[in-house]
Amino acid sequence: MNCKPERGRHERAAGAYGPGRSGRDRGLDRAFPRAISRLKGGRGMSSDRAAASGRSSGTTEEAGVHRQLSGLMNPQSVAVIGASAKAEGWSGAAVPVLRRLGYTGKIFPVNPKYEELNGLPCYPSVSAIPEPVDAALMFVPQRALPDILEDCGRKGVRGAVILASGFSETGEEGRALEERLREVANRNRIAICGPNCLGLANLDSGFMGLTAATFPADLSAGRTALISQSGQLLMVLLARAHDQGVHMRYLVSTGNELNVEAADYASWALQDPQIASVCMALEGLRTPSRFLDLAARARAADKPLIVLKLGRSQRAARTALAHTGKMAGAFRTYEAVFRQANVVSVDDPLELADVAALFEKCPAPRGERISVVTFSGGWSGVMADQAEALGLPMADFTEATVEKLKPLLDFTPPVNPLDLSGNVNNHPERWGASLEAVLADENTDIMVVFIHQVREAWRGNLIGPVLELAKIAEKPIVVVYDGGKVVEAGYEKLAADRSLPIYRGSQQMLKALKRFVDYHRRKAEGPGEAASLEMPAGAAKIVDTLLAQGGRSLSEYAAKEALRAYGLPMVGERLVLTEDEALAAAEGIGFPVVMKGLADGMEHKSDAGLVHLGLSDADAVRAAFADLEGKLSGHTLNGEAAPCIVQKMVKGGVEAILGMQNDPDFGPMILVGVGGVMTELLNDVALRRAPLTAKDAREMIDETRLGKLLAGFRGAPRADRAALEEAILRLSALSVAHAETVESIDINPVLVLPEGEGCVAVDALIIKPEDAA
Amino acid sequence: MNCKPERGRHERAAGAYGPGRSGRDRGLDRAFPRAISRLKGGRGMSSDRAAASGRSSGTTEEAGVHRQLSGLMNPQSVAVIGASAKAEGWSGAAVPVLRRLGYTGKIFPVNPKYEELNGLPCYPSVSAIPEPVDAALMFVPQRALPDILEDCGRKGVRGAVILASGFSETGEEGRALEERLREVANRNRIAICGPNCLGLANLDSGFMGLTAATFPADLSAGRTALISQSGQLLMVLLARAHDQGVHMRYLVSTGNELNVEAADYASWALQDPQIASVCMALEGLRTPSRFLDLAARARAADKPLIVLKLGRSQRAARTALAHTGKMAGAFRTYEAVFRQANVVSVDDPLELADVAALFEKCPAPRGERISVVTFSGGWSGVMADQAEALGLPMADFTEATVEKLKPLLDFTPPVNPLDLSGNVNNHPERWGASLEAVLADENTDIMVVFIHQVREAWRGNLIGPVLELAKIAEKPIVVVYDGGKVVEAGYEKLAADRSLPIYRGSQQMLKALKRFVDYHRRKAEGPGEAASLEMPAGAAKIVDTLLAQGGRSLSEYAAKEALRAYGLPMVGERLVLTEDEALAAAEGIGFPVVMKGLADGMEHKSDAGLVHLGLSDADAVRAAFADLEGKLSGHTLNGEAAPCIVQKMVKGGVEAILGMQNDPDFGPMILVGVGGVMTELLNDVALRRAPLTAKDAREMIDETRLGKLLAGFRGAPRADRAALEEAILRLSALSVAHAETVESIDINPVLVLPEGEGCVAVDALIIKPEDAA
Repeated sequence: MNCKPERGRHERAAGAYGPGRSGRDRGLDRAFPRAISRLKGGRGMSSDRAAASGRSSGTTEEAGVHRQLSGLMNPQSVAVIGASAKAEGWSGAAVPVLRRLGYTGKIFPVNPKYEELNGLPCYPSVSAIPEPVDAALMFVPQRALPDILEDCGRKGVRGAVILASGFSETGEEGRALEERLREVANRNRIAICGPNCLGLANLDSGFMGLTAATFPADLSAGRTALISQSGQLLMVLLARAHDQGVHMRYLVSTGNELNVEAADYASWALQDPQIASVCMALEGLRTPSRFLDLAARARAADKPLIVLKLGRSQRAARTALAHTGKMAGAFRTYEAVFRQANVVSVDDPLELADVAALFEKCPAPRGERISVVTFSGGWSGVMADQAEALGLPMADFTEATVEKLKPLLDFTPPVNPLDLSGNVNNHPERWGASLEAVLADENTDIMVVFIHQVREAWRGNLIGPVLELAKIAEKPIVVVYDGGKVVEAGYEKLAADRSLPIYRGSQQMLKALKRFVDYHRRKAEGPGEAASLEMPAGAAKIVDTLLAQGGRSLSEYAAKEALRAYGLPMVGERLVLTEDEALAAAEGIGFPVVMKGLADGMEHKSDAGLVHLGLSDADAVRAAFADLEGKLSGHTLNGEAAPCIVQKMVKGGVEAILGMQNDPDFGPMILVGVGGVMTELLNDVALRRAPLTAKDAREMIDETRLGKLLAGFRGAPRADRAALEEAILRLSALSVAHAETVESIDINPVLVLPEGEGCVAVDALIIKPEDAA
Repeated sequence: MNCKPERGRHERAAGAYGPGRSGRDRGLDRAFPRAISRLKGGRGMSSDRAAASGRSSGTTEEAGVHRQLSGLMNPQSVAVIGASAKAEGWSGAAVPVLRRLGYTGKIFPVNPKYEELNGLPCYPSVSAIPEPVDAALMFVPQRALPDILEDCGRKGVRGAVILASGFSETGEEGRALEERLREVANRNRIAICGPNCLGLANLDSGFMGLTAATFPADLSAGRTALISQSGQLLMVLLARAHDQGVHMRYLVSTGNELNVEAADYASWALQDPQIASVCMALEGLRTPSRFLDLAARARAADKPLIVLKLGRSQRAARTALAHTGKMAGAFRTYEAVFRQANVVSVDDPLELADVAALFEKCPAPRGERISVVTFSGGWSGVMADQAEALGLPMADFTEATVEKLKPLLDFTPPVNPLDLSGNVNNHPERWGASLEAVLADENTDIMVVFIHQVREAWRGNLIGPVLELAKIAEKPIVVVYDGGKVVEAGYEKLAADRSLPIYRGSQQMLKALKRFVDYHRRKAEGPGEAASLEMPAGAAKIVDTLLAQGGRSLSEYAAKEALRAYGLPMVGERLVLTEDEALAAAEGIGFPVVMKGLADGMEHKSDAGLVHLGLSDADAVRAAFADLEGKLSGHTLNGEAAPCIVQKMVKGGVEAILGMQNDPDFGPMILVGVGGVMTELLNDVALRRAPLTAKDAREMIDETRLGKLLAGFRGAPRADRAALEEAILRLSALSVAHAETVESIDINPVLVLPEGEGCVAVDALIIKPEDAA
């Protein structure tokens, strides 16, 4: 096991998790290093560097990590250290609970006080156990943990659950103790769940290492994994999900994440063929690269990650910092990264199970068209309204379906949403027939069945046919069952059957369905092919040279040189120092021209009065030069006399903004949006993590109003969209190649000219990282 | 009782509800005519007209309607017509149910088959009952209804519940039967609930005329009224609300609304001092003016209307039409009307009870700042995120509170959201002390208490102190109780107590809280004073004359004349027919000028090439005139030679759009938004029903990006916002005065010049109603 740090800038950021917790040697291992370096491009520790540092091959590492995590998540034997005969508390309950849940492995109570406990031999220490031990559950005081962990190490224990709190979350002393524990755990190659957590459970094997106030009655395993940094969130979600018929298979409260973090558990769970989806409630990401790796694995495994990312608000970020010592990233960046990786992002904890239900119980839909069967006109109206508000299309029934439905209806029309009306109670056979007809309709991609508050005697007539149909359906069937406690037995019947996703309200259902459908659409589209544009020869060298100049930012002229080196079209311009040079430049470029003054510390040229637009003759150029000369007097650019630029005055075109912001967690994020004076007012931009695919560039344009503007808005000619797409990809390439030395780029406006005429950037700014200035 | 129609355009629209149901003589009465005419300004039937038509005074009418509705909603005696001894069905259950619920009035079973039923004397007919009868519940076949209603009329019955379906919802024959029933009911002054409904209930008196499959166990009365056009919606909402501790007082399934519509029930319920709020689920509004009257009454009574308006989507509108024969209005207009009347609009049925809970159980909040008490860092983060996303501010604890909290906390900081952490279980006294400290904080306007999944033994410790505090609190306290069935007993305990609003999820709670807070803020602000601008003398006459000209629309020149008559500032311009006139006009106005050609059928002047901008000298004017002359050749304007206009070329200013659309339900709706070429792309507009107050005009500007643009965006000078506000109010005045003869007005762009320089409209269009062309 290799605990050395990755050395990219990402890792420096990770070090900010908290004083004294550098983040550099915390990991159980730099899990899956090859996958990470592949994802990170040249920025993190490359496999070359890994080889150079004597690190063992990724494959071996990976197998090792997998083995340790398997010991923690799916142990064949478990030592319950500190097991007791007390009636209260988990030290007494742990062994009986493992047996009650039918844990399939061996159980070894460990406590020097007893020779036998719960009918099992009890051992004085872990090393005294005569058989191999995979996992340890620790019910021992904080201070005893390091020695016991050493003993576990000697015994070859692979994973341990440490529930105790009183570590880094409490201050300096606890932090030191946590560091010591980490050193012992890493040296002994023990994967730790916790400390300061509720533990974990594998409901498939009955391995219950989760200590909470209450549990749902039915703890049989399902096909969903739930991983939460917050224990309280985990337990509430567990209870709500099981009530809903969405059972968990793996449950982890990750706590302080000593050497295993949320993404590691999720990666491990993905490998179980029985897992349909992995749900995560995250306050922060310790190692963003691991999360990206996880997302790539999920995509490869064809399984969704469903993530609630906390810490969106300023206040939440403060809370998170105070409480768990984790930095919450900027939410907009997360949203962009999640979308690109096809991670399903939710904004309410309860949505996790709502969405997981669909992935566990439904086949992939063929499309997005919903058909609704109900027996109330009111609820039909609600469904139609809410589906439209969420952008979910309703199916149109085919003529054949209409003919099938007609004899089943009394007064209501054979349209979608289908309202069978209360008469269905007098003709129960019509219910099943309608469901079959609607499900079979070729325009139905998803069928939603609405069962309202119904008399007990009728309940079977309504629920039965839906459950029958679920057994053979090749399309998603979703049930909304609504009516309060008085009809709760029906909800419980549906939940216990576990074959269908069920919801208590229409809006709750549609929100989940929208996320399900979006995931499948994006999955079908794929991430797009890597862009294959060729960059001009020597581009990287030109940019490196420009960046090596002093100052925090490149001047407009230098920034454009850098961008031009990567093939980004820049407006024609010349650098001039004298009036004669200015006149000659203007003649060469052709009137009208623009003149600007460039000086260090005067980057906001308009505000400083350093921009003259629309100079249409020599006199105008002379006047402008005189004005700029006066204003620039005494100023310099990179230590030399401050120059002016003369550039072509470009007219017309659609104004776009292109930008890059180097995120401390995710590296270069590319921004595209409506440019010019409206940029700030509209704030209409799309964000993606570089490198971008051609599909990303296309999508970014269409996500904003740029899509409409470029198509020829209000009689304007269709603009050269292809040229803008190429410019976006070139910016992406530059940003990735120079990620270590560029902090942000602004190109605003880029004028997108009529089709065939390309696009051209009129102004540009490049900022270097603070430590590179 | 007067069943003649109101004669405004509103009523013509109401006639579109369905063929053969003119809407003109359907009402039990034109309920509350004085209030309506007050609200409608001069457009509907004015009180003068009412007097002229021999109608009795509003006050007498109103008393009469109130008396009939009271007979229906709060009868002192009820005849159960068609009562039977059958074990199944409502005809047999009605009498026992009334007794079981402790109905406080007298019960008279009516059925010629029995002499006694359920231990009560049974009568052969209503008229045979020897005592007065207020209400009748009808369990008789459709065909028998007219004769039985006549009998009820003879007996002086005031209200009847007709559950039977098979009326207008089924086609032509049913429609005829419904018409006959209406005639009998109106002639006999009987208020009808239904037909084709589930009936109604007064849970306070135990009058249960509601027939449904299931009921919640506890039907004791609360302080909320629920009125729904859909019976299924009503019953599901009833069940969910009672589970949540929000009990209903009045429940109405309005069905086909023979002569009493949803707004009438709501107006009646508002008069009960025990009613805290009225919830409505509406597919359409039969008589929009009644709804507006209701909203005004609710405002006067200081009680909120909480409305779910269905039929927002195209598809839902179709469903509504097919199923209930009602037209669903355009939702954007509804939203504007609701907001202006401070009606709480919700978009999910379940939200009705979520919001009603707050109005029933909480005092008005002093402000919007929320303090949260929880014992989980994860849930704290969720709360902070979700509150910020909804724009609900979190309180900052005062220093005094921080000092009070410090000794109650182990490792967590004394900040809001307050996380007491799991340690609260070991120190139960800290819970109550924290709640008290947070509630007492002067920055806390609303306290949210989060009780998660907790062990049974601890439940009392957590719930008890909250309920104690609720008894004395002068601020809203809200509980989120989350944790699934395993802790359901705690939820049930809170619900049974009924003193606090309780929610199962944080997002559900915050959505409701946002609506509650918005209602109270708008209530405190008030609707604003009626605008008191003086209109120029003779304005109405000038506009009437212009509108009397032929054609569907006014030319730009005529439209501007009309708007100028009401004091709206229009760009300086002259109408010209010859080149000489054009040159003289340009000289008089001052270069540069704009020239446009005007002709019938060429209203879209830019598209027809009839606009020349920026003419800076006489030559340019000559060339433009020659071009326009050619294009206008053979065209006319109002039958005369097509002229040109020469107008000042206005530069700069913020572009706004002002408009009016005469809604068939609500009359003139005023629109304000970002103007110019961006209008269509941004679709950034605010809508209000005329007449507007000065506050409306201010709010409309601030609801759109105009607010920012006028304030001096990106270095532009601050624009003359006051001038735009005045222009909006003048447009409102014109629209109200000419509502019968103007269908829509477009003024785009209005250029808002720098402060002190006013605003000026550059283009305008006025369209007349189709039948006025």
